[in-house]
Amino acid sequence: MTRLIECVPNLSEGQDTVVIDSFMSALEGIPGLIVLDRSSDASHHRTVLTFVGTPEALKQGVVNLFELASRHIDLREHVGEHPRMGAIDVVPFIPVRNATMQDCVDLAREVGAEVAQRFDVPVFLYGEAATAPHRRLLSNIRKGEFEGLPEKLRAPEWKPDFGPEVPHPAMGASVFGARPFLIAYNLQLDTADVRVAQAIARAVRTSTGGLPHVQAMGVYLADRELAQVSMNLLDFQKTPIHRVQELVKIEAARYGARVLSAEIVGLVPQEALLEAAAYYLQVENWQPDLVLENALVRKGE
Amino acid sequence: MTRLIECVPNLSEGQDTVVIDSFMSALEGIPGLIVLDRSSDASHHRTVLTFVGTPEALKQGVVNLFELASRHIDLREHVGEHPRMGAIDVVPFIPVRNATMQDCVDLAREVGAEVAQRFDVPVFLYGEAATAPHRRLLSNIRKGEFEGLPEKLRAPEWKPDFGPEVPHPAMGASVFGARPFLIAYNLQLDTADVRVAQAIARAVRTSTGGLPHVQAMGVYLADRELAQVSMNLLDFQKTPIHRVQELVKIEAARYGARVLSAEIVGLVPQEALLEAAAYYLQVENWQPDLVLENALVRKGE
Repeated sequence: MTRLIECVPNLSEGQDTVVIDSFMSALEGIPGLIVLDRSSDASHHRTVLTFVGTPEALKQGVVNLFELASRHIDLREHVGEHPRMGAIDVVPFIPVRNATMQDCVDLAREVGAEVAQRFDVPVFLYGEAATAPHRRLLSNIRKGEFEGLPEKLRAPEWKPDFGPEVPHPAMGASVFGARPFLIAYNLQLDTADVRVAQAIARAVRTSTGGLPHVQAMGVYLADRELAQVSMNLLDFQKTPIHRVQELVKIEAARYGARVLSAEIVGLVPQEALLEAAAYYLQVENWQPDLVLENALVRKGE
Repeated sequence: MTRLIECVPNLSEGQDTVVIDSFMSALEGIPGLIVLDRSSDASHHRTVLTFVGTPEALKQGVVNLFELASRHIDLREHVGEHPRMGAIDVVPFIPVRNATMQDCVDLAREVGAEVAQRFDVPVFLYGEAATAPHRRLLSNIRKGEFEGLPEKLRAPEWKPDFGPEVPHPAMGASVFGARPFLIAYNLQLDTADVRVAQAIARAVRTSTGGLPHVQAMGVYLADRELAQVSMNLLDFQKTPIHRVQELVKIEAARYGARVLSAEIVGLVPQEALLEAAAYYLQVENWQPDLVLENALVRKGE
């Protein structure tokens, strides 16, 4: 089986469709690279590209994106709602198939070093690739944003992992890293009261003492007139979907509310849903090799 | 994606391991064919082989099995607990990947005609390949077994679909067909009272007025001292696992019993578990393409 890694670069351009199209074109035609998704937000002035490929193909793809960004993105003129410090702001690598987290850490280091040298951009490593505990969280690295970079880079604890110790005038700095697959997962409630969704979010998310590896917030869906618990599941192997689902149900019960439905945003790895099925069906002899398709892969088809 | 079909021939030899090994050898080395399972039962005097492959590979494999059976199996000397009418008793084809039921019907006809002509064996078609409603059920075709074949074949309604209208002296007759994937699925109860499992089985199985496409019986597991509802789910797309699971729970509640755990026997198609996950998680935007691996396949990886 080919080694497949996912790459989800966030670009600081979400308005000019001609430029965004050119970023897409820069990925097409690379052997072994498949673009899965492209999502632009004009008010964020930001585009998120999702593609998978072999390590070699991803390296080529990311270098192509930096080449284009060096010509088309100037952060000195960039205004958007989303925090950012670089033209290519973040480049995470995610193991997808036949690849380990260490493979992704290695790739983040290799590609990060390459673009730092080629484009004279400071590069930080984050997530599983971080070289110090205070650099694990992307939000810590990005604090101060593009405008704060000159000062931030003077602090010894913010010496970049690769590249110059001054920001690139137009491209700022970039953050490379490795992380598990992120599942964007929302649960709709049978109430329009957003405070219920907010209270549930506080109970389940990591930052306020809930489950590990969960980000959550309560939002009101005006078009449907109902409240939603909107979540990112940051490590579905450690905090599986079913545990989040059942905890949301339990917390909702306190307010007489129930889960109306779930929404999967983007893609979900097969393993995450198979584990949920095994939980709810109470399969006592569960192992992924019970799945016909997995058995075929194991046998070499 | 390669077209993959599963084939599960039932052979009337379950005791002589040298002969059974030779059947296995007859499958090995066929390009595009993968053996998934082999299961012999001495008291049934029967072996079930499970393999997948391209249509061409399966045809070669089945012809090889008939070649060996013509030399090693003589039903005139065969005594076993399981009903049988042929040396190669049943040959079902099951769509697995990138193959339709019609592909399997076509393959059953093609390979059935081939072995009938080559080995002078009458061949019936059953299941989705049946040429008349009374031939849909394997049990109808096999009624009378090997010993009753001379008389059965004289009846106009039992004229074979292919081959001679008299049985092969040693090999009897064979039944080829196409059917959906069968999931063998057991639910353990938190009671040792087999009558509870039997009552639940009567409530859920097709033959006594329950759900379509379900075979079920209640059994006592002596080693675990508990009762089990043992089932075959004959068409998981029409009667999905979760519906069976929840109906068993509902019927069990009548007796104050609960489901302790589930057991998957053999293999289960990915789709069956993904649909169960989508049900229990209440995914409102469910479609198989939400699964990363499926999206990759669709994109051509």
